[in-house]
Amino acid sequence: MKPQTVFGFHAINGRLKHAVASIQTLYVSDHRQDARMRDLVARAEAAGVRIMLADDRRLEGLAGGNVHQGVVALCSEPSVPVHLEDMLANVGPTTLLLLLDGVTDPRNLGACMRTAAAAGANAVIVPRDRSASMTDVASKAAAGAAEALPLIAVTNLARAMDQIKEAGIWIAGAAADSSKTIFELDLRGPLAWALGAEGTGLRRLTRERCDWLAHIPMFAAVESLNVSVATGVCLFETMRQRGVAKAGT
Amino acid sequence: MKPQTVFGFHAINGRLKHAVASIQTLYVSDHRQDARMRDLVARAEAAGVRIMLADDRRLEGLAGGNVHQGVVALCSEPSVPVHLEDMLANVGPTTLLLLLDGVTDPRNLGACMRTAAAAGANAVIVPRDRSASMTDVASKAAAGAAEALPLIAVTNLARAMDQIKEAGIWIAGAAADSSKTIFELDLRGPLAWALGAEGTGLRRLTRERCDWLAHIPMFAAVESLNVSVATGVCLFETMRQRGVAKAGT
Repeated sequence: MKPQTVFGFHAINGRLKHAVASIQTLYVSDHRQDARMRDLVARAEAAGVRIMLADDRRLEGLAGGNVHQGVVALCSEPSVPVHLEDMLANVGPTTLLLLLDGVTDPRNLGACMRTAAAAGANAVIVPRDRSASMTDVASKAAAGAAEALPLIAVTNLARAMDQIKEAGIWIAGAAADSSKTIFELDLRGPLAWALGAEGTGLRRLTRERCDWLAHIPMFAAVESLNVSVATGVCLFETMRQRGVAKAGT
Repeated sequence: MKPQTVFGFHAINGRLKHAVASIQTLYVSDHRQDARMRDLVARAEAAGVRIMLADDRRLEGLAGGNVHQGVVALCSEPSVPVHLEDMLANVGPTTLLLLLDGVTDPRNLGACMRTAAAAGANAVIVPRDRSASMTDVASKAAAGAAEALPLIAVTNLARAMDQIKEAGIWIAGAAADSSKTIFELDLRGPLAWALGAEGTGLRRLTRERCDWLAHIPMFAAVESLNVSVATGVCLFETMRQRGVAKAGT
């Protein structure tokens, strides 16, 4: 299997923390010696990772022209893919899922993963044929979250939503034309947030399966929020309502 | 003066809405004919903007290799730059400012502008020597907000913060190591949010001038939020506390 390339401090620290066994080789700049680099190398050494020095040209080639900050790792897939069924077998009062309907830009997908992980989501669920996949660019934008949070690609999002509701999870959809604001919803039980792509929003079949629809109130100066920012506003409002004492534990 | 290049639907719609007089020439794709394009052209025609058809090669050259979506405009600077003093002469109970201390990536600056405009901020204030400026890339990421919201670059951020406080505005700073969460602050009066760069946070002199410090509670999976997402969480929590009925009016 072709190894996956992971680059940049955030993403590689994420691997070291959550899936260290998946790192085959870590390439580090042969001239960058600052504290951040020393810290990363020390952690990698402590974990027994194979480390190679590389010059800038080599690093650039490995990272395929992306910004690598002097660190690139070749990795295997981190772990077995998580299935929706496994996820739904363990639903609790703080279960939090993010459904992304039509986020096709890999950087946006990664940014949503990062935000969802910070807000304590259990998984991100996307329709396989209408979504970016976890490419190197997405993984970099995820800043370590791609290794910490399962991304579940489903064949049929509408069917997955039916399964999610049968498992006792409520689904809230973000829709600009809805009458309620997200601040008016009670978000304290097991919950899935459904967000669509900027501009087009949720598809009709996705929208119809939401238990509630609500919008983020916005001033008229701009047309929409970036989807990762909208994700942050919805998920952190959920965290606020649930009580923040749980965060970080 | 060299004209500024603005590209993409969001940014050009922002110009049409907020600074139409600054558009010198609008170049549109000679073969893209979808509803979004027709709508934009109709609005530009109604406003009396000079419109030219251009082929892909021409558009790419004008946009300097950036993603242009078939629309590029050459513009003059939108209006006179706003001074901090002018802004502080009109402080009211819903005054909302965003101070960005060290956001050097133009895409992040643009994304923060977009988020701030959506949340009803009155201006974004940055230290001139430690900030990205409103380049074409920043303007694209701002998705129209660069034309709707003043970006005020100040020589000395600490001094600007003193002026802001003297004008009766409270300053809340986001700091990961603070004991309070942002949800525990009372954000209802005239307010400025101060956010630092990812990783390094607020500088000491900036931090010391904040009336309150608070953190966004986060689960341990990731180290930080993207600064535009953090901006969204802080500013929309402010909007929630102030009552959302005002949004969009």
